[in-house]
Amino acid sequence: MDELRICVVGCGMIAREHIERIQNRIRGARVVAVCDVVPANLEQGAAIAGPGTKQYKDFNEAVNDPDVNAVMVTTPGQFHKSPVLAAIKAGKPVFCEKPLANAASDCREVVEAEMESGKHLVQVGFMRRYDRGYRQVKELLDSGKFGAPMIVKCTHRADGVADSYTTAMAVTDTAIHEIDVLPWLVNDEWDEVQCVMPRRSSKAHEGLQDPQVMILKTKGGIVTVLEVNVNDGFGYDINCEVVCENGVVNLPCPSFPTVRFQNNVSTKIEDNWIMRFIDSYDVEIQDWVDHALKGQTGGSSAWDGYVASITADALVKSQTSGAFEKVQTGGTPDFYQK
Amino acid sequence: MDELRICVVGCGMIAREHIERIQNRIRGARVVAVCDVVPANLEQGAAIAGPGTKQYKDFNEAVNDPDVNAVMVTTPGQFHKSPVLAAIKAGKPVFCEKPLANAASDCREVVEAEMESGKHLVQVGFMRRYDRGYRQVKELLDSGKFGAPMIVKCTHRADGVADSYTTAMAVTDTAIHEIDVLPWLVNDEWDEVQCVMPRRSSKAHEGLQDPQVMILKTKGGIVTVLEVNVNDGFGYDINCEVVCENGVVNLPCPSFPTVRFQNNVSTKIEDNWIMRFIDSYDVEIQDWVDHALKGQTGGSSAWDGYVASITADALVKSQTSGAFEKVQTGGTPDFYQK
Amino acid sequence: MDELRICVVGCGMIAREHIERIQNRIRGARVVAVCDVVPANLEQGAAIAGPGTKQYKDFNEAVNDPDVNAVMVTTPGQFHKSPVLAAIKAGKPVFCEKPLANAASDCREVVEAEMESGKHLVQVGFMRRYDRGYRQVKELLDSGKFGAPMIVKCTHRADGVADSYTTAMAVTDTAIHEIDVLPWLVNDEWDEVQCVMPRRSSKAHEGLQDPQVMILKTKGGIVTVLEVNVNDGFGYDINCEVVCENGVVNLPCPSFPTVRFQNNVSTKIEDNWIMRFIDSYDVEIQDWVDHALKGQTGGSSAWDGYVASITADALVKSQTSGAFEKVQTGGTPDFYQK
Amino acid sequence: MDELRICVVGCGMIAREHIERIQNRIRGARVVAVCDVVPANLEQGAAIAGPGTKQYKDFNEAVNDPDVNAVMVTTPGQFHKSPVLAAIKAGKPVFCEKPLANAASDCREVVEAEMESGKHLVQVGFMRRYDRGYRQVKELLDSGKFGAPMIVKCTHRADGVADSYTTAMAVTDTAIHEIDVLPWLVNDEWDEVQCVMPRRSSKAHEGLQDPQVMILKTKGGIVTVLEVNVNDGFGYDINCEVVCENGVVNLPCPSFPTVRFQNNVSTKIEDNWIMRFIDSYDVEIQDWVDHALKGQTGGSSAWDGYVASITADALVKSQTSGAFEKVQTGGTPDFYQK
Repeated sequence: MDELRICVVGCGMIAREHIERIQNRIRGARVVAVCDVVPANLEQGAAIAGPGTKQYKDFNEAVNDPDVNAVMVTTPGQFHKSPVLAAIKAGKPVFCEKPLANAASDCREVVEAEMESGKHLVQVGFMRRYDRGYRQVKELLDSGKFGAPMIVKCTHRADGVADSYTTAMAVTDTAIHEIDVLPWLVNDEWDEVQCVMPRRSSKAHEGLQDPQVMILKTKGGIVTVLEVNVNDGFGYDINCEVVCENGVVNLPCPSFPTVRFQNNVSTKIEDNWIMRFIDSYDVEIQDWVDHALKGQTGGSSAWDGYVASITADALVKSQTSGAFEKVQTGGTPDFYQK
Repeated sequence: MDELRICVVGCGMIAREHIERIQNRIRGARVVAVCDVVPANLEQGAAIAGPGTKQYKDFNEAVNDPDVNAVMVTTPGQFHKSPVLAAIKAGKPVFCEKPLANAASDCREVVEAEMESGKHLVQVGFMRRYDRGYRQVKELLDSGKFGAPMIVKCTHRADGVADSYTTAMAVTDTAIHEIDVLPWLVNDEWDEVQCVMPRRSSKAHEGLQDPQVMILKTKGGIVTVLEVNVNDGFGYDINCEVVCENGVVNLPCPSFPTVRFQNNVSTKIEDNWIMRFIDSYDVEIQDWVDHALKGQTGGSSAWDGYVASITADALVKSQTSGAFEKVQTGGTPDFYQK
Repeated sequence: MDELRICVVGCGMIAREHIERIQNRIRGARVVAVCDVVPANLEQGAAIAGPGTKQYKDFNEAVNDPDVNAVMVTTPGQFHKSPVLAAIKAGKPVFCEKPLANAASDCREVVEAEMESGKHLVQVGFMRRYDRGYRQVKELLDSGKFGAPMIVKCTHRADGVADSYTTAMAVTDTAIHEIDVLPWLVNDEWDEVQCVMPRRSSKAHEGLQDPQVMILKTKGGIVTVLEVNVNDGFGYDINCEVVCENGVVNLPCPSFPTVRFQNNVSTKIEDNWIMRFIDSYDVEIQDWVDHALKGQTGGSSAWDGYVASITADALVKSQTSGAFEKVQTGGTPDFYQK
Repeated sequence: MDELRICVVGCGMIAREHIERIQNRIRGARVVAVCDVVPANLEQGAAIAGPGTKQYKDFNEAVNDPDVNAVMVTTPGQFHKSPVLAAIKAGKPVFCEKPLANAASDCREVVEAEMESGKHLVQVGFMRRYDRGYRQVKELLDSGKFGAPMIVKCTHRADGVADSYTTAMAVTDTAIHEIDVLPWLVNDEWDEVQCVMPRRSSKAHEGLQDPQVMILKTKGGIVTVLEVNVNDGFGYDINCEVVCENGVVNLPCPSFPTVRFQNNVSTKIEDNWIMRFIDSYDVEIQDWVDHALKGQTGGSSAWDGYVASITADALVKSQTSGAFEKVQTGGTPDFYQK
């Protein structure tokens, strides 16, 4: 394959970002078709993709269009499974935005289908593995200079969420990023998880427990403490501190000018995740394209997507029980061993 | 009273620091007598205090010397109770280094004796309440600008401990400072506590679990996460981050020159607690003297010392149980209400 | 034009970086020919460009190859003029690495030729205008929030230079970047400049005056102080502070993890300019390609290159005179007015 | 002498600070008399000093009161000389607030009188030598780890000045602190100085040139660049960066909590010099007292005060000439050699 001819299934906000990205900043790929059940979305997606883009309402037709040799799934989470399975069936590489699916059983179904196909076709869109800062931290950790990681402390803070955001979504929508990126960062696997609830912020909408403190232990004994705080009042603020035997490594914050103004020396905090991770998305999609052109996958696999889902389920359970809950994946199949 | 004429009971290391401090940097006080059962210590203490200092082997005689009108207790923790009780009996103000006593029951005994005496005589030496950084943080929190505190994250890190340091001492010797200072900082009381054990550092001596992650909830629902890490490999490192409804406040690190050298821009980390809190000790002892001269106490009371002890017991219990354990003080007596 | 088919004239180190960049990370352009008088360089350049790349010894032939529709000049500075003039004559867009030429008279010749051609064809490779940090600073300044700039303070520090580096090159090779980027940053023009010599570093090789302090005043009265220090002992360290009427804005340093290690909290400083500005080069070359495809130029113009050269001459003169020397450009021609 | 019994001559603002300081925080000293020609000032000074304080209108009577054994001169600068000379004549140690005198000839007169007396009696109140940050920087420089200093860059910024503040006062009132502290910091002497004028801030009141850039060269070839900027719009901001052969050392900023709030991570900047240097004043006055009790002086000598005055005169001359002006002290007399 010397060029990915991509069909984008689902033309919502993130899809439009990706279409623009692929058409303008990615080498070796083109969006040739878009698909959405909502006509307005479909039209917008096609307009961004440019003249000549094919438009589909039915994802099966789209995926199986012979002009299409790769699929990007950007539908809402509950509609990820079917187009991903269709792509696997068609033997076409597929990039699926996170999460792989909302239910762990659906993730498992994808995993089984991919293993059956015998080919690595599915990449899940956890973009943090492509963030420069996380990569710098991983490089330092992997160098061995700091010794073994023992404690990891993270914050996942945002300045407001939609009214539809629920207590469980603090795990499934928000913490899910740390659930995926941290085992990759420290080369370990989740073992058990606990959720501790602080007093509610008066800024949280009715029915939402915010903030939350999540404690995740790995099989290797690393204790991770994650603050999820989506009404923080000041911006999008991702931090990650890794305490090792010989020293401590902190994820860098985005680089902004330092300013002296009105009795403060200050640096800007991002408004939202789009700006914070916009570079990571570029790197991620380019990496997917580069891998797919060679018949490979990069980043998070379908198995990673399944494990994230199982881990999220355990955390949601602990939101009610308050106790440590086990993360039971049944062990990594040979197919997904690295 | 227009000058404290102090007898220092116990002439170990911290005592010598305090004697030097009082004789040279504190107004309104003088060390007039020293007491120790070990002759070498006694001699050293007297030498630092200067010519004319009385020397005692028996703390009862020392405390009741009519030339003495105030007592400083700097014996090892298990020998705090008796001289403190003697000072209360004599009606003389007494500064007792932390902890008030090793056993909660001993602390309780001191509390009962002080209440019976009807006078506030006992101040416990938790110096962090006098640290400029904590005071700046408290001022910001009390201003209301940041809204209610919801989460507090602390580190208490040191670069090595004696071989005699035990897993329980991570609570009773180390975390005890946060146990005292945090309720004061956020105007709340401890409710329940949990201890989670990460993988052991290969630097920890045999039999010692280090690091430890402690989770302490207040009655007001604030969740505190405290990392105790006494073989950190890089220095004495105290941090405290308070997550409030409108923003986050971080304890400042000590102020050192920033240096560009050998491919790094860096700032020094303190070697040990003596340098980190040396200013706080000056402020603390001066504050004790100023209060004592007016018949009052400042800083931590005997009740605070008792509560710290009860809380520490609950944390030590959780080191084994792994579960949340309740902190049961029986309620603050009227005598100690602020 | 829908694709730049580039001939790279001069296949030294920076050329090889650019060839690799264009072939792998830039959209809308391909290197189709390389040119060098040194056979080994030519071969290396061609190898990086890949199979099918044409090889030339004569820049005239290369520039006039009908397969070539754009030129990149990466010869040593003293050999920039001729291929740039050839490209102008051929009416092909040309990217010329900085400086435009070593002598101001040569720069002037290019300017005259470009004006005569009636087309904007020449872009000079001052990459800092494409650095994200400078762009962030410019955006803040242009917002007006901070009022008018009054003082600018810069450092241009490196950890070592070749033995061939001379006192004059502190201006023509090093300060030349600030000479170009600062007027762009603050929307002003140079008026007069002075060079002040501190004591020599014992690290400077014989005959080299290092460090140097350069003072550059703009027509609008902004005073710039630039430290050039190319044996700093610790890394590549670019700083820029703009003092405005209402506040101060500082160029951000590159983003690296913060590390606690061996009694220091530290952040890495870059080893050299390649890593510091690697992202800027990507953005710069893509911007040149995007503009050239539309028949335009971006970044620094031939006129900017000429002004930089005139300014450098004045600074070199002040290295001897120690006095303020005037920067006399004769005024911006209409052709280059923005 | 075992206690300083101080007469404070001049009871303005800084005097009141010092009186309060001496009565409450300094060991080994007491204010026993105050002197001022303005009755209201005299009364206020006496009130702060407490009951029993003697009150004088005539400085000669005050200085020569046999109860007084030390003098503090806190009159306006033009009235420093006479009481200082009176104290020298009486053989009593005298602390004179900066500057020693407004005119260099007056400073010289004090120097001559002190040398004639044969005793070191005069200490000039340049408090920065007692600032912890400067002391930390000096310790690092003196360690030799960073090699010889080559360039020093300072800012002296404030947020507003009185209408009576003149262009010359940027030197004599403001830069005077750096003029005194920097030679001490780098163990060198001023050689020549230049003043460069940027565009005026629109915040500067009529007739005032603000900001100013001052360039001061030492005999050892260190080039110092000092920004004086007294309408900075954001607070009191003292910075000092020393560029050495092996690295760069920066004066630390005061220690305040770091705050995340309203899309910024920020740290407070001091409002004014009183808060910035309040600790330095405590250390300074205690050091004067400690030295005076032993018949010595600490800090800046009368000679230092004279040199500062000569240097200031040269800078003021350059405010008009724009050229480098020589600092001619005639050489340090043996009496003042260290």
